[in-house]
Amino acid sequence: MKLLTFEKDGFESYGPKVKREEAVWDILKIAVAHNKEDFPKTIREGVAKGNEFVEAIRSLVERAEKSDNPSEYKHAFNEITWKAPIPKTAKNIMCVGKNYADHAVEMGEGKAPEKIVIFTKAPTTIAADEQTISAHADVTEELDYEAELAIVIGKRGHQIPRQLAYDYVFGYTIANDISARDIQYSHQQYFLGKSLNETCPLGPYVVTKDEIPNPHNLSVVTKVNDEIRQNGHTSNMIFKVEDIIAEISRYVTLEPGDIILTGTPAGVGKGMNPPQFLKAGDEVKISIEDIGTLTNRFQ
Amino acid sequence: MKLLTFEKDGFESYGPKVKREEAVWDILKIAVAHNKEDFPKTIREGVAKGNEFVEAIRSLVERAEKSDNPSEYKHAFNEITWKAPIPKTAKNIMCVGKNYADHAVEMGEGKAPEKIVIFTKAPTTIAADEQTISAHADVTEELDYEAELAIVIGKRGHQIPRQLAYDYVFGYTIANDISARDIQYSHQQYFLGKSLNETCPLGPYVVTKDEIPNPHNLSVVTKVNDEIRQNGHTSNMIFKVEDIIAEISRYVTLEPGDIILTGTPAGVGKGMNPPQFLKAGDEVKISIEDIGTLTNRFQ
Repeated sequence: MKLLTFEKDGFESYGPKVKREEAVWDILKIAVAHNKEDFPKTIREGVAKGNEFVEAIRSLVERAEKSDNPSEYKHAFNEITWKAPIPKTAKNIMCVGKNYADHAVEMGEGKAPEKIVIFTKAPTTIAADEQTISAHADVTEELDYEAELAIVIGKRGHQIPRQLAYDYVFGYTIANDISARDIQYSHQQYFLGKSLNETCPLGPYVVTKDEIPNPHNLSVVTKVNDEIRQNGHTSNMIFKVEDIIAEISRYVTLEPGDIILTGTPAGVGKGMNPPQFLKAGDEVKISIEDIGTLTNRFQ
Repeated sequence: MKLLTFEKDGFESYGPKVKREEAVWDILKIAVAHNKEDFPKTIREGVAKGNEFVEAIRSLVERAEKSDNPSEYKHAFNEITWKAPIPKTAKNIMCVGKNYADHAVEMGEGKAPEKIVIFTKAPTTIAADEQTISAHADVTEELDYEAELAIVIGKRGHQIPRQLAYDYVFGYTIANDISARDIQYSHQQYFLGKSLNETCPLGPYVVTKDEIPNPHNLSVVTKVNDEIRQNGHTSNMIFKVEDIIAEISRYVTLEPGDIILTGTPAGVGKGMNPPQFLKAGDEVKISIEDIGTLTNRFQ
């Protein structure tokens, strides 16, 4: 199931993509029509219920399909404004640093780190697919993209054993970990350079984990103004999804709706010779196999 | 006004300390008695209203004082369980690294950083005054204390000018930025070593800014098992409160209830010769002038 959050006529709702159509089922509308006013109001709220939430959505969609007028409960994509599938998280977005060896090397490190490196981005960085993003030219001259597979956590957990890690995954989405390199490095710790407003576009969908049985078998492609810049594959992650969940939760309690970015492959702007940073007018498209394409323009 | 959050008979409430008494006014109880069911349910919810919130609390307390039975609306401190004054934040707690020159030196840095260093602690680290905290002996051998003045942000803001910074402050509290030194340094970025559960005790009060006209004129004392370890003064901060707010908000949008830790003076366990880390049975007491004392035992 591909879940998205959207705005229509000033109201925020969410639902699954309609199969073989460029449209979404409006789950909150279907829920109200069936007197389920207590249905989760956001994907994040539902995520904590795990598979039960996914089944409940399926059942609502079935009812809508069988209703007299199914089209009443669908919106074509060209009629909605896309939002980030999870527009707000309970803690900062957690990010794995240098999790692809080729990227660690292009960033000037001799080799990949032995111990997992985790930094964070403030939730105020979350942006949507198709959202136009500030190039932040007033504070940075080195704005850069990073295509990343993002894990959406489905269950609260602390010290999660590696072999149970997938029980704690709700699904996956695409993230662009937009980074102001000058700020990131001059302030020692990465937080400020990673937390400019709107620098974490997420989407277009949260794809439930049943549709991605192996998150380490996905191509990751970034195009800047239609030029291919990153052409990676999640099979090259150093710390795998199960390692990441085990390592972070060894120290930090994970909560439903938490988002973890799994690192970016080689090909970022800073790694080019000469480096090429993002500027107003640029368009970045990140495609991850089985999830979709996340597109943002800069202004 | 000294505001605290507490639990009594399984219900969470908050209110100001009763003057000259070891007791708290139960604001939610007074609000209900006066048919103000829409009164903010938590300090964090009220903080966004700024001075209006403080005035509304004053007015409720006056009514309670004039009521037939004022004691009905007060609880003695020995009848309540203390909670962190703000038990949940919208983003991770932001912390200024090495903001006292003597502490930067004891941590092995030649000098204090030129640019402000900001790292974060997950909101799952927040703990209360008097709460017993795990020594986390299963994951760290180097648990350490850091006494810090904490700023509570009262108003949403981005790129806040230095000269307007105090308009964005709601008040101040005490924080212990408990740090697992081994994890903090071996993982490069500080987040994991700073985010073990319960490693950010806050409290006992949020003191509104009118009572602390100069946050750079406060003594900061830490005792471990009654031995004085830190004996600092906020006048020695390198980045002052107004610098910190201007610098962080230059990049990151601040939100009401956000908490910023302003750094710790010299005297942490890692700086001792030989280093002395926290272990089960230890008690740490942090006192900041005009705020109070934050006490935690480790187990």
